[in-house]
Amino acid sequence: MLRTHTCGELRIENKDAQVSLCGWVQRIRDKGGMIWLDLRDRYGITQLSFDESRDDAALIEQVRQLGREFVIQVQGVVMERYAKNDKIPTGAIEIKVDQLTVLNSAKLPPFLIEDETDGGDELRMKYRYLDLRRAPVRNNLMLRHRLMQATRRYMDHQGFLEVETPVLIKSTPEGARDFVVPSRVHEGEFYALPQSPQTFKQLLMVSGFDKYFQIVKCFRDEDLRADRQPEFTQIDCEMSFVEQEDILNTFEGLVKYLFKEIKGIELPDFPRMTYADAMKNYGCDKPDTRFGMAFKELNHLAQNKGFQVFDDAALVVGIVAEGCAEYTRKQIDALTDYVRRPQVGAKGLVWVKYNADGSFKSGVDKFFSQDDLKAFADHMGAKPGDLMLILAGDENKTRSALNELRLKMGTDLGLRNKDDYQALWVIDFPLLEWDEDTQRYYAMHHPFTAPKPEHVSYLKENPGSVNANAYDMVINGVEVGGGSIRIHDREMQRRMFEILGFSDEEAKEQFGFLMDAFEYGAPPHGGVAFGFDRLCSLFGGSDSIRDFIAFPKNNAGRDVMIDSPSAIADEQLKELHIKIAPTTKS
Amino acid sequence: MLRTHTCGELRIENKDAQVSLCGWVQRIRDKGGMIWLDLRDRYGITQLSFDESRDDAALIEQVRQLGREFVIQVQGVVMERYAKNDKIPTGAIEIKVDQLTVLNSAKLPPFLIEDETDGGDELRMKYRYLDLRRAPVRNNLMLRHRLMQATRRYMDHQGFLEVETPVLIKSTPEGARDFVVPSRVHEGEFYALPQSPQTFKQLLMVSGFDKYFQIVKCFRDEDLRADRQPEFTQIDCEMSFVEQEDILNTFEGLVKYLFKEIKGIELPDFPRMTYADAMKNYGCDKPDTRFGMAFKELNHLAQNKGFQVFDDAALVVGIVAEGCAEYTRKQIDALTDYVRRPQVGAKGLVWVKYNADGSFKSGVDKFFSQDDLKAFADHMGAKPGDLMLILAGDENKTRSALNELRLKMGTDLGLRNKDDYQALWVIDFPLLEWDEDTQRYYAMHHPFTAPKPEHVSYLKENPGSVNANAYDMVINGVEVGGGSIRIHDREMQRRMFEILGFSDEEAKEQFGFLMDAFEYGAPPHGGVAFGFDRLCSLFGGSDSIRDFIAFPKNNAGRDVMIDSPSAIADEQLKELHIKIAPTTKS
Repeated sequence: MLRTHTCGELRIENKDAQVSLCGWVQRIRDKGGMIWLDLRDRYGITQLSFDESRDDAALIEQVRQLGREFVIQVQGVVMERYAKNDKIPTGAIEIKVDQLTVLNSAKLPPFLIEDETDGGDELRMKYRYLDLRRAPVRNNLMLRHRLMQATRRYMDHQGFLEVETPVLIKSTPEGARDFVVPSRVHEGEFYALPQSPQTFKQLLMVSGFDKYFQIVKCFRDEDLRADRQPEFTQIDCEMSFVEQEDILNTFEGLVKYLFKEIKGIELPDFPRMTYADAMKNYGCDKPDTRFGMAFKELNHLAQNKGFQVFDDAALVVGIVAEGCAEYTRKQIDALTDYVRRPQVGAKGLVWVKYNADGSFKSGVDKFFSQDDLKAFADHMGAKPGDLMLILAGDENKTRSALNELRLKMGTDLGLRNKDDYQALWVIDFPLLEWDEDTQRYYAMHHPFTAPKPEHVSYLKENPGSVNANAYDMVINGVEVGGGSIRIHDREMQRRMFEILGFSDEEAKEQFGFLMDAFEYGAPPHGGVAFGFDRLCSLFGGSDSIRDFIAFPKNNAGRDVMIDSPSAIADEQLKELHIKIAPTTKS
Repeated sequence: MLRTHTCGELRIENKDAQVSLCGWVQRIRDKGGMIWLDLRDRYGITQLSFDESRDDAALIEQVRQLGREFVIQVQGVVMERYAKNDKIPTGAIEIKVDQLTVLNSAKLPPFLIEDETDGGDELRMKYRYLDLRRAPVRNNLMLRHRLMQATRRYMDHQGFLEVETPVLIKSTPEGARDFVVPSRVHEGEFYALPQSPQTFKQLLMVSGFDKYFQIVKCFRDEDLRADRQPEFTQIDCEMSFVEQEDILNTFEGLVKYLFKEIKGIELPDFPRMTYADAMKNYGCDKPDTRFGMAFKELNHLAQNKGFQVFDDAALVVGIVAEGCAEYTRKQIDALTDYVRRPQVGAKGLVWVKYNADGSFKSGVDKFFSQDDLKAFADHMGAKPGDLMLILAGDENKTRSALNELRLKMGTDLGLRNKDDYQALWVIDFPLLEWDEDTQRYYAMHHPFTAPKPEHVSYLKENPGSVNANAYDMVINGVEVGGGSIRIHDREMQRRMFEILGFSDEEAKEQFGFLMDAFEYGAPPHGGVAFGFDRLCSLFGGSDSIRDFIAFPKNNAGRDVMIDSPSAIADEQLKELHIKIAPTTKS
């Protein structure tokens, strides 16, 4: 080894020890007679000291030639510091250096390698290997490492087998777009990269593997949003001979274990909320339950009082912002502007102040008496000093807009504390979603999700009313995982493909192997998948998954560091039996 | 849960317990009045018993309707068996069944789901999910799971961070062929799948991650041999501020840990053998050291005696097969045929028997006196009763052929015991290999391997003589892993690319990011990668890696179960801006 210790290791107990350290020059303070150098590695920072009156002139000259980020090796003696630094674990000591070797020089980095940097996003992406030197970024990746190891410990301990499923699989048109890989050996044919190991993990259940897991890369060729990546990591799991409750308990156990191991937090049991209740009370299927402000429907109190907006609405629904009766005109206007943003989509906002003196003031006083508004308040559970915020219109859009407003109020009122973790299971999802554009049903979860046995009889007449044993784990308004009990019966799977508009031939071509497998003794089974990048960002207290990926791609799916994707050689194209066919854009 | 216990769990201590079990029908023995059913799951087999004189007629009828591989759930009571079966852990008990539920029926499987099956290779590949039900195959995958978890435990404990590197990267023409992925967003551009995370792990060292590992899928579009797969798994590792010896010790530690944890075997320290010695003594760089039979060169004794074959040869070299002087004519002819096979490539074989009475008999008695042959024997360390086998010809080809012959003799003489593990490090590999066809040097390891510092000065005049700090771990003649100390200096990397025939422009386009990174403070570093599939097969005592992969591809790179690769939709091709361009084969 080129070192005896790391830069995070030495303490006052090591005083007088002869040591070697290696690392990067973080900072040099040259005070004339004395020079101090902070040497950095993954493990910490150790101060080196040089004394012009004591040390060899050549050594001093060498130090003065160093620049930021030079890689050096030093030999020296551990000394007690005069001025100790309580902020770092090595702050009680410094190294009196006898010998210094430059292992590599460094150009001036294009941005500061400090916790707070001056580098912009694109620049830091291009020089990702330098950005990864910064402690906050490295800590994110270290957190990811710890989460990965702890996940595997728990799963292994629970008897799950980690099985690697293939990356070169087969393209299926259902769901998001696949990335494909042309075959050289099989002209005109392609592999596809998996969007998830779904069918393989189900086959493992058919194989009797009983409990499977994998931490696995998955791929989706989607138009990217800020928090999506073309390649992402899942904790993928499946179990046999279980009912929904067994799966919920097993994976609630996993997440509790991770919180305990990684953050020292003991989470209480996760409440279960039906999808219907989530939509009714929070207007979304992943409610942030760190705060209340549940929806209250007001149709019976608000309609037929002559206010056209309410009278024409399918739904009048509101929330109570506690202690906000003093909001100014300007603040309320800002909220109105917020709900009118196209992303939120409401036409307007009705506000009702429940003043401290018990009187009401609202934007609709013309239509509603004090008694009317008192009835609103009583129904909504508002107290003097509170502000009621009411939206009206089409049912789904109004719930969705009020969800956004609720989240904004939660944020504004400081009710969404990053260090408070509120987890729950949302259960009883509908099996299918109707799509107006294509006039067909889509699987809400995926085509392998089983209908609730007691709902199977509605499948024919009223597929939209069928619920599934499907569930999502939601923490702080983020869907961290989800899954379902699967179909394990060939005929039911065939019916499901039929409902989803597959011809028998298409179903057979794409999923014949799975339906065949169901004929050879498939056990009842179900599972779950967690978005691992998202889980890391949740644990790290960040909204961005990119901060938790070592080498992420940008919003255009490009790795700007290695400059990929890129052109390939004509010879390669020829071997793969393909040609570039430029697409004329209109 | 649909069960209270697994099929491997119940013991005599559970007598009289009311239990539920789930599993597959392995076997039914219907002896008229009594029926026994072996119920199987991942954990074992439990016997169920039914008694016509005791049980409900409907239950008996139900049992008689069952077939092999039906999935059932039973409730019943644990009873002590009359005739105990010592061969299975549950052999002391059976379940007196009260209630039986068929969870799924099963068609007759296309082959026997038993340890010894009647299914051919292709059939078992097509129904891989059924093959995976067989205990030997499942045990292989369970071994793989245990190896994976133990590897991570060791690496984590040693302070290595597991970092996921990207799968969608950039194509580089050096090395094997890449699989590529057309980009939809970036017309005419492609991602490539990694052949290894080499450059990324080096960038992580530049980032100061210090110790990295990953168990990771890699991809090579090669023409497949029986033991190659287009996607394979590596244990990939890299360390900073180390010298070769540190890496050898760390990963020797890993493999010792795995042998101890998984097989209960304490391996002694691994000997180190130079590449030059391996080639000289065994004719290959991955010698099987479970047995001796080292090469002995005979030029000085064998030439100039009038035997043209020896006189014309660059090399005369032999091995001693202990105790084989009694080999028959037929046996020796068979060996001669063996070495003449095109895969071995020798022109003929010279044999010399050292008879028990001290006399010699050989195929070249015309040219060599008894004294000459005694000199051979003395030089080769042969004793009375031994057989000397000698090849002659071109140096490299002769060593290579004698290597094959040595391995065959080792096998024939039972010297290659699967349960004997002999590990070593082969070190001091040449940096470069000259290729006659293309008249250029290729990197023996890869273009990032550093020349030995003391050999750098020969790089210009005589690149072929330069050795590298490169090393392979060899166990029982199998290369399980290899690595090197890397170049961490931009100028050295540039020179290496130059020697390998890259123009500056090509080097910059393909590896500019790495060379740039070397300018910002790259530490000395090195690493290793283990072929994980191969390691599993070694631990499992098998020659085939395919047996240790859940869903392998066949020799044509095809997954015959899911039928991939396959054609994709025209719409997909269009979105990807590519066209099929049939290649006319001559």
